[in-house]
Amino acid sequence: MNPSLSTNVQEHLSARPQPSATSIAAAGLSRMIEPGDVIGKALVEVSGMVDAYAFITHSTQPISGSLLQSMSELLEAWGHRKGIKLLREATERWRTRTNHEAVLQSLRYMEQLGGGLLTPDEPLWPQQLSDLEFNAPFCLWWRGSKPPLLWPSAERMVSLVGSRDATSYGNSVAVELGSGLAQADVTVVSGGAYGIDAMAHRGALTAEDPEAATFPTIAVMAGGLDRYYPAGNTDLMDEIRTCGVLISETPPGTAPTRWRFLQRNRLIAALTAATVVIEARWRSGALSTAHHALLLGRGLGAVPGPVTSASSQGCLKLLKDGAELIRDAQDIRLLMNDSDGYAPQETDQSFMKSEPRAHDQLSVNDLMLMDALPIRGWSTVDHLSEVAGLNIGGVLSGLARLQIQGLAVTREGSWQKAK
Amino acid sequence: MNPSLSTNVQEHLSARPQPSATSIAAAGLSRMIEPGDVIGKALVEVSGMVDAYAFITHSTQPISGSLLQSMSELLEAWGHRKGIKLLREATERWRTRTNHEAVLQSLRYMEQLGGGLLTPDEPLWPQQLSDLEFNAPFCLWWRGSKPPLLWPSAERMVSLVGSRDATSYGNSVAVELGSGLAQADVTVVSGGAYGIDAMAHRGALTAEDPEAATFPTIAVMAGGLDRYYPAGNTDLMDEIRTCGVLISETPPGTAPTRWRFLQRNRLIAALTAATVVIEARWRSGALSTAHHALLLGRGLGAVPGPVTSASSQGCLKLLKDGAELIRDAQDIRLLMNDSDGYAPQETDQSFMKSEPRAHDQLSVNDLMLMDALPIRGWSTVDHLSEVAGLNIGGVLSGLARLQIQGLAVTREGSWQKAK
Repeated sequence: MNPSLSTNVQEHLSARPQPSATSIAAAGLSRMIEPGDVIGKALVEVSGMVDAYAFITHSTQPISGSLLQSMSELLEAWGHRKGIKLLREATERWRTRTNHEAVLQSLRYMEQLGGGLLTPDEPLWPQQLSDLEFNAPFCLWWRGSKPPLLWPSAERMVSLVGSRDATSYGNSVAVELGSGLAQADVTVVSGGAYGIDAMAHRGALTAEDPEAATFPTIAVMAGGLDRYYPAGNTDLMDEIRTCGVLISETPPGTAPTRWRFLQRNRLIAALTAATVVIEARWRSGALSTAHHALLLGRGLGAVPGPVTSASSQGCLKLLKDGAELIRDAQDIRLLMNDSDGYAPQETDQSFMKSEPRAHDQLSVNDLMLMDALPIRGWSTVDHLSEVAGLNIGGVLSGLARLQIQGLAVTREGSWQKAK
Repeated sequence: MNPSLSTNVQEHLSARPQPSATSIAAAGLSRMIEPGDVIGKALVEVSGMVDAYAFITHSTQPISGSLLQSMSELLEAWGHRKGIKLLREATERWRTRTNHEAVLQSLRYMEQLGGGLLTPDEPLWPQQLSDLEFNAPFCLWWRGSKPPLLWPSAERMVSLVGSRDATSYGNSVAVELGSGLAQADVTVVSGGAYGIDAMAHRGALTAEDPEAATFPTIAVMAGGLDRYYPAGNTDLMDEIRTCGVLISETPPGTAPTRWRFLQRNRLIAALTAATVVIEARWRSGALSTAHHALLLGRGLGAVPGPVTSASSQGCLKLLKDGAELIRDAQDIRLLMNDSDGYAPQETDQSFMKSEPRAHDQLSVNDLMLMDALPIRGWSTVDHLSEVAGLNIGGVLSGLARLQIQGLAVTREGSWQKAK
């Protein structure tokens, strides 16, 4: 770790105030309410976080008729018709997880781990998450060595997602794109899985710069940030924590379940200006992130692959359905409307640079004359006239032009192509 | 060669009449006028083929003012403003190639080779070529063992084109697509080059069936049909000649020049309902065929490949520019509007078939419960309630559903995931 950076962090930590009532309520609610629980979101919207937490933790207090009424109306406005019975059941469900001491402990623990909790009332809260409307999270747990002041703006973030069981092709494209974006000061957002997620982070971390204005990469996790899942990515997660940040909706100690993985995907899509699927099978969790990006009106791109590769069928399907085809980091920046005046041109494709060919500039007649010129033997003007189908004047003037361009040579009145 | 087929061909040949004045004129004009020469096309349109040929071969006859006037007006209507001087020069140019004996000989020679000349006034003429307007050919030389009665309709033909220096990926996709189309009675049209052209033909020939209603494949050549270019494809060309047909605008003895290759591409695009580029570098002749297909309003598809492969950059560019993404022969048939009620579905993709998963049918609550069930140890209903965040009633009813579906098992009041 950079020594001056860790000093900064120490100052930041020691200057940190005791958790506010809002933070405690948010921590408690994130323990009791599953990510994406719209009924819980309705309660928070109607009561505010502090009152919502107080209501749930007063386990004997029945839910009032007026609260039920307000929640019902809000849920209906969101298109979620829920009977009163479901709302009562939801309260019982949340109450099974009540544990105020554990909530306070989770806040202290997160601070010890070099992290904290961010709530929507704080200036650093990523405002773009409100596009999720009734699916927006009400807090984010974070863990990182840099103070969260370095959080980038939405239009400087892109999600790179894909399969865990990626091919070497997918992995190498992920590294390439992650690195290309970070070099252009675009923050990469992904999950914490093996394969594409890991390689996208690794690519972004190659552009690591302690003086950088923002994080090179952000990992959005499905479970608590106290332990890493999968454990095999521990070194990578430590590196992301040092140079970037880890975030999660769920408090420390939470297991990453299938449900939480699916809900996590909506955060990845909502945080960023665009989502790019690098490699995905016909059925892949990455496609759920793509779906969220579409619903949110974010950019959606996909990297093509061989039609013979099962590992690319999800991406090819997205492309058939209208996702933008992504070849390199520049294509992604165009998708994000972050072009810096960049317009794709033949010569910008470094791996396929080709010199303009002399022949490209020839007129039709001169091209026919070039075709008629022998490579080895020598040809007379009369013969060239017949082979090229040009009159004598056309042959003579054409030969003069080709000679000036170094494409034709003459000897004793006969002609051939220049070597 | 199929014996009954060669008998048919013998009958066809012996029944063939002497060449008509139109055939002789067309043969002569195809010798003198380069493919795609709009001035030549204007002369043919204004005078008719027989008179146009007679005018050019009367080498001393000057071009009349009224003929010049008519040609000028026609060229102007086509958007080609050409000065009178250019028209006079064109006449001189054509006349350099006059040789009536060679013209008659080329017709006899082609007949000996098992072929002939087709002109637009014949019922078998492929009418779709008239979409080329002032670039339409005025004759087609052909060579094949089946009588040209088997010429398919335009909407049953598709062009498969691509690079000569194809990768093993491109080659294998070309074989796959060629074979898939021929099996669906769609005729493949391509050039005669190594790489994608050859592999597309080879794929189509695997579906060879002497009783088939149409040719499996058609090769459109840039030079005369008396010799094959490249010579390394001689065996393939012989096989196409036996089962399909070879065609060219140019008479026997004509060398395949760069110009003629470029012009040949417009025929490939115009003959078919759609053009599919299978593998092409950033600069590839196949892209000129794609361009013609677009100009003609034909379907245009491209097969994606790895973004890291230089051999796929031309295809990826076409896809960026809106070409339809092609994964298999079914995608091509959809592009041709030849779907036979086919609609792509997950399960139609044989190489990525996946069984529906039991989990897919679960409600959100049951999914959370599944996530909470241990794989090894056993969990009580109370514990499941806390871990899953569900009330006791929800856990009990959920466990009952999971048990019925064989997803959960119970022992002494505790539960785990079914193995």
